[in-house]
Amino acid sequence: MELETYLKKTAEEVNSLLDDCYGNPKTPLSTAANHLLFAGGKRLRPALFKLAADAVRPGSSKMIMQAGLSLEVTHNFTLIHDDIMDKDEYRRGQKTVHTLWGEPVAILAGDVLYARAFSLICEAESSEPEKVKAVALLAKTCEQICEGQQQDMSFEDLKDVSRHEYLEMVTKKTGVLYGAAAAIGVLLAGGSDAQVDALYNYGCKIGAAFQIQDDIIDLLASSEKSGKDQASDIREGKQTLIAITAREKGIDLKPWRRHLNKDEISSLISMLTDKGVIDAVQNEAEQMITSAIDEISILQDTVEKHLLCELAWFFIRRDY
Amino acid sequence: MELETYLKKTAEEVNSLLDDCYGNPKTPLSTAANHLLFAGGKRLRPALFKLAADAVRPGSSKMIMQAGLSLEVTHNFTLIHDDIMDKDEYRRGQKTVHTLWGEPVAILAGDVLYARAFSLICEAESSEPEKVKAVALLAKTCEQICEGQQQDMSFEDLKDVSRHEYLEMVTKKTGVLYGAAAAIGVLLAGGSDAQVDALYNYGCKIGAAFQIQDDIIDLLASSEKSGKDQASDIREGKQTLIAITAREKGIDLKPWRRHLNKDEISSLISMLTDKGVIDAVQNEAEQMITSAIDEISILQDTVEKHLLCELAWFFIRRDY
Repeated sequence: MELETYLKKTAEEVNSLLDDCYGNPKTPLSTAANHLLFAGGKRLRPALFKLAADAVRPGSSKMIMQAGLSLEVTHNFTLIHDDIMDKDEYRRGQKTVHTLWGEPVAILAGDVLYARAFSLICEAESSEPEKVKAVALLAKTCEQICEGQQQDMSFEDLKDVSRHEYLEMVTKKTGVLYGAAAAIGVLLAGGSDAQVDALYNYGCKIGAAFQIQDDIIDLLASSEKSGKDQASDIREGKQTLIAITAREKGIDLKPWRRHLNKDEISSLISMLTDKGVIDAVQNEAEQMITSAIDEISILQDTVEKHLLCELAWFFIRRDY
Repeated sequence: MELETYLKKTAEEVNSLLDDCYGNPKTPLSTAANHLLFAGGKRLRPALFKLAADAVRPGSSKMIMQAGLSLEVTHNFTLIHDDIMDKDEYRRGQKTVHTLWGEPVAILAGDVLYARAFSLICEAESSEPEKVKAVALLAKTCEQICEGQQQDMSFEDLKDVSRHEYLEMVTKKTGVLYGAAAAIGVLLAGGSDAQVDALYNYGCKIGAAFQIQDDIIDLLASSEKSGKDQASDIREGKQTLIAITAREKGIDLKPWRRHLNKDEISSLISMLTDKGVIDAVQNEAEQMITSAIDEISILQDTVEKHLLCELAWFFIRRDY
C-alpha cells in the first residue's frame, strides 16, 4: 500500500473512532473540548502508533487503536493551550477555542483533553503492566512538551540560541510526542524493550526533523501554497535553524527583520542559498531522517517497516 | 492519636516527600510549577489517601505514599489554572503563579503538575492492574473537576441555580478529588471493590460538605479570623447554598449585593439566622457528613476508621 493511501485510510478510521467516543457531547465544556479535535488534522500520531504496533506484531493495532487516539488527543490539548499563549486566532482554518469561548473555557477544554488522553490508554485491550508503562511514558512526554514550549517562548528574548539548544527545544516540543506515539504502539502491542527504544528514538528524530522542515517551508513556500505568511520567522527574528546557521556563517539577518515584499523574499532566499544556508539546514534534516531509519533497522521486513521508512522521508519532503 | 496530630504529622511527611521528588528544580518551568506546591497547604488529600489505605490494610500506606502525593499535585494543578481564570493575585499568602511569571508560564506550570500526578501513580509499589484503575479514576476525576469549575463559572450569569445544580457543581469541583484520594488509597492498598466504592462515596460527600462549610465561613467569619473578605459571596451575588436557600424562603438578597460594613453584615446574619437559612444550610452539611460516615460502616474498627470519622466532622466544624 502506498503511504498516502495508508494515511488517508487511517485518518478516516481515527475520525470515526473519535466520533464514537466523543461525538455526542453532553456539556458545553465537552463541546468546546471537541471543537479542534473534530476540525480535521492529518492524524499522523495515531498513524505512527498503528504502524509501530503492526510492525512488531502484525494485526495488533486493531485491539488497541483506542489508545492510538490518546496521542491525537494529547496533541490537541497542547494546541489549545499553545494557541492561548500565542494569542492565535485561527487553527486548521477555524477560530481557536479561546477566540470562540474565552480563555477560561479554553484552559479547561485543554485540561479535559489531557484527562481523556490518559483514560484512553487505560481502556486499551492490552496487558496491565504495559498500560502502566504507557501511562508513565505519556506523562513524561507531556512534561517534556511543556518544557519545549517554555523554551520556545524564552527564545524570543534571546539572540544567541545555539544549535544544541534549538535541537533540544524542537525534540521536546515536537519530537517526543512522535516518539511516544511509536513507543506506546509497540508497548501495547507487546513488543520488546529494544523495539520500544528503537521506535521511540525513530519518532523523536522524525518529529524534530518535521519541525526543521516547517522552518524551511516558512521561508520557501509562497503564501498561496502554504496558506501562511511567507518568511514570517525571519520578519519576527525567530531563532530557527536557518537563523542559527546563517549566524554561524557570519550572515546578519537583522536588516531583513521587517515586512518583505515578494522580490525581497526572493533575494533573501537567493542569498541564503548562495551562502549554503538552505543546503546546510536541509542536510541536517536529512541526516536526522537517515538516522531515524537506522534506528528501526532491528525491525523485520514488513509492509509496516517499509511504510515507516516512507513516513520518515515524507516528514521532510512535503513542501507545504 | 488525635486527628490534629495525625494531620500535622502527615503534612510533614508529605512536605518531605515532595521535597525529595521536586526539591531541586532543574528548569525555570519546574521552579514555577513548584511555587504553589511548596507554599504550604493542609495536605488533606494525601492524609485522606493514607487513612483510607491503612484502614483497609494496616501499614500499607508506607509502600504507596508516593502515589498519595499525586492527589496533592492534582489539587495544585487545578488551583494554578483556577487562579488564572479567576484572576486571583494571592493564594496561601503568596503571589499566584500567573502574577509572578505571566499566564503562559502559569498554564504550562499547571500542565506540568498534571503530568506529574499521573507519573506519581505509576511509581507506586503496588500491583499493575490496580495502578491502571487508579490512573483511570484520576483521569475521570480531573475531567469532572474541569466540568465543576466550568459549571461554577457559568453560575455567575444565572439567577436561578437549583439546589440540585449547586450540589452537582460542588461535588464535581471539590468532592470527587477527595473521593479519588480515598478510593485510590484503597485501590493501591489492595482493598475490595466494595471498600473502594464506600471510600469514594465518603470522600465525595465530605468534599462537597467542605465546600458548603466554605460558603458558611465566607458569611460568618470575620476578615480578621479568615484572612478573607467577609460576605464576599453575597456582595458578588454568588449562587451558594445560602443564596439558594434564602431564595427558596422568599428572601431577596439583591439589596445586599454591595459593599457591606460590619454592622450591615451583622444585620444580614441576624436576618438569615431568624429566617432559618443558616440552620438549614448547616443541617444540610451535617446530613452529608452523617451520610459519609454511614458509607464507611463496612470498615473494620481501627484507629484509621476512627480518624476518618473525625476527619469528616472536622471538614464542617472548622470555623475558618
